[in-house]
Amino acid sequence: MDDSPSNTTSIKDQILAMGAQALDASRALATFDSDHKNRILLAMADRLIADEAIILEANAKDIAAAEKNGLTSAMIDRLKLDPQRLAGIADGIRQVAKLHDPVGELLEEWVPKNGITIRKKRTPIGVIGIIYESRPNVTSDAGVLCFKTGNAVILRGGSEAIHSNRAIADSLQNGGMAEGMPPHAVQLIPITDRESVKHMAEMDQYLDLIIPRGGAGLIETVVSLARMPVIKHYDGICHAYVDVDADLDMAEAITINAKTQKPSVCNALETLLIHQDVAEKFAPLIAKSLRKNKVQLIADEKFIEIIKESNSDIDVQAATEADWRTEYLDLILSIKIVADQDEAMNHINHYGSHHSDVIITSNETHANRFLAEVDSAAVFWNCSTRFSDGEEFGFGAEIGISTDKLHARGPMALKELTSYKYQLIGTGQVR
Amino acid sequence: MDDSPSNTTSIKDQILAMGAQALDASRALATFDSDHKNRILLAMADRLIADEAIILEANAKDIAAAEKNGLTSAMIDRLKLDPQRLAGIADGIRQVAKLHDPVGELLEEWVPKNGITIRKKRTPIGVIGIIYESRPNVTSDAGVLCFKTGNAVILRGGSEAIHSNRAIADSLQNGGMAEGMPPHAVQLIPITDRESVKHMAEMDQYLDLIIPRGGAGLIETVVSLARMPVIKHYDGICHAYVDVDADLDMAEAITINAKTQKPSVCNALETLLIHQDVAEKFAPLIAKSLRKNKVQLIADEKFIEIIKESNSDIDVQAATEADWRTEYLDLILSIKIVADQDEAMNHINHYGSHHSDVIITSNETHANRFLAEVDSAAVFWNCSTRFSDGEEFGFGAEIGISTDKLHARGPMALKELTSYKYQLIGTGQVR
Repeated sequence: MDDSPSNTTSIKDQILAMGAQALDASRALATFDSDHKNRILLAMADRLIADEAIILEANAKDIAAAEKNGLTSAMIDRLKLDPQRLAGIADGIRQVAKLHDPVGELLEEWVPKNGITIRKKRTPIGVIGIIYESRPNVTSDAGVLCFKTGNAVILRGGSEAIHSNRAIADSLQNGGMAEGMPPHAVQLIPITDRESVKHMAEMDQYLDLIIPRGGAGLIETVVSLARMPVIKHYDGICHAYVDVDADLDMAEAITINAKTQKPSVCNALETLLIHQDVAEKFAPLIAKSLRKNKVQLIADEKFIEIIKESNSDIDVQAATEADWRTEYLDLILSIKIVADQDEAMNHINHYGSHHSDVIITSNETHANRFLAEVDSAAVFWNCSTRFSDGEEFGFGAEIGISTDKLHARGPMALKELTSYKYQLIGTGQVR
Repeated sequence: MDDSPSNTTSIKDQILAMGAQALDASRALATFDSDHKNRILLAMADRLIADEAIILEANAKDIAAAEKNGLTSAMIDRLKLDPQRLAGIADGIRQVAKLHDPVGELLEEWVPKNGITIRKKRTPIGVIGIIYESRPNVTSDAGVLCFKTGNAVILRGGSEAIHSNRAIADSLQNGGMAEGMPPHAVQLIPITDRESVKHMAEMDQYLDLIIPRGGAGLIETVVSLARMPVIKHYDGICHAYVDVDADLDMAEAITINAKTQKPSVCNALETLLIHQDVAEKFAPLIAKSLRKNKVQLIADEKFIEIIKESNSDIDVQAATEADWRTEYLDLILSIKIVADQDEAMNHINHYGSHHSDVIITSNETHANRFLAEVDSAAVFWNCSTRFSDGEEFGFGAEIGISTDKLHARGPMALKELTSYKYQLIGTGQVR
């Protein structure tokens, strides 16, 4: 940015100083009770609304720069704030204030042979780094989830939204500090030099966890640099498998919903697998229905052959190997006929992204095999993959959907932003 | 090793092939029930005993090489196997067979507003890499814990134990496969070229987790290279804080036990902090008691002054800043007088390794503050830090003590070698 320091040493020093401040803040925050944290959250929400003029003015600068730089209208829309969207962000904070605070929960308590009482208690993680791209609402959404769980957070947003992000972060800090928030509990890196991602990723003396929220390129950069744990929210290459024993009406309804209700999100359907014994009947039916919903079809030879034989004039493109690995995020669906359930599950485990996959069947044995053997964060039986979502799970809010298997898998909400410690209470025991 | 391929490409290819085989094995293993896994474990134990002559012969080669290379007698002792030690390793496997298998456990089940039944079920992690140093028993100990929890494992031991490790791994594989174990469920990298650590650490398409078991140098190498999650078992710089309200007899007993019962382990005491108001009484008492137990004392000026004033001839060395960060793993203790509990907790959070720390006090308020505010995996009140141990916790076996906060913190046993998945059971729901 034009007004940020360009000297590498000073960027590194600045980020290291923010790390040290965040660690101090996290120690202080670990002692805050839920009521105090919630009062701070409500003060943040009020302040965001009070600062509406400042935030929208900052946002206008980002929009002007985006237009000047020729960003697409979709990208500009993602950046854009208005009074209604800002009110939505503030409402989001108020919702988080209402959620149950998991910190301090007694997870387990027992007394082993040595007679010492052992308590496993839920704690904050400590300091969390969030690296994200264009949407300025992430500054608030991610910041308050970390705060609610007693973590200090260092936010690093994209350059397109820098003015908006700074204004929102200032507002959260000023609102929070007026209610007693530790000064560095929520910090935004005010510079967007690419160097700053590297310094954050190497700062494992201060950061306990880093969460990249954005495209595969950003995640790859963080993974290759990071010394601390990274929780990744990779692509959703989600599958529906229509079993030999499927209710075909249900299969149609789930396929259409999972593909078309919101195609741009990670839990949308990307590949449809059809058991060969129902393909003659289901393929023409689903092809017609998908086309009616403006979905472009890409399929294997067998599917194309069945469509041709059914005297349909529906246009189906031939799939290449790359299609099975593609997250279209658009009204495009890849389709394959499989010999049996084993082929379907092998395909999903091999080409999928271990995110969300569904079997449609009325056969419980088939369903149970699918639920056990498909190696994905969320596996579904007879419902849409679009339910792979923290809100739908009843978590209230989510920071993303983890495609990792360590610490957090699937929809990641407040509990997943916590760690634990063991407390051992003795009466003088020695070994 | 003299008999291993020296070509870099072939080492990398060989390790990638092992990764792909491990992934296949892990998929197969995920469907094994506990009984079958336990039968395989017992077959491994039997085979180890049956292969005693082969294993001891291989071990003799390692010992001969160690003597030739001038390793210390302590290092040679760590390498050494004999019939009794081998029987101990086999018994360890039989113990693991008896432990409860956490895989498949229903962790939570609920029905949110959408009417879908959501089950959170415990699963294996997938493929785990273990990188370790000299002790050959780790090949079996770590391998069987991963196997018990349905994970495929790739083991990479140190060059000093390569013949022993190969023989033990062959024995586990042959014993296990005779009972139906997937062929590549337990693999040892047969070469000890340093290159192999790098290839393992970069192989995140196959390895879900890597656990380095060894010194800080090994851990640092893995952390800086790894693309997948790493669970670290760093040093234990453990503290005892003798509070103003401590029972001084108990404080003495716990200090002596934590320091002297087994000084070479990570949960042994390294620093003693004494509240200034009890220092006049406690310092001379504990100095005498520690010296009687052959502990060398390194302390701050105040402690040294009190010892001098007590007309004692006990030798106390002056502590430097470096001492507060040192894990002696020996009969050496650093000692500091603190003004109050805040100074003690700040010292522990700043200089400690967040492993295991104890307060000795009869004041419950002081204890509760310590248990809440000291940011360590295990925090103790009135008992020895030596209880920071999977066996003592009642976990049956442990793979190490994690100093990380993500996924696993503190003693890490079978549960910590698992992940989870969500299973969603619907009746045709769409959004």
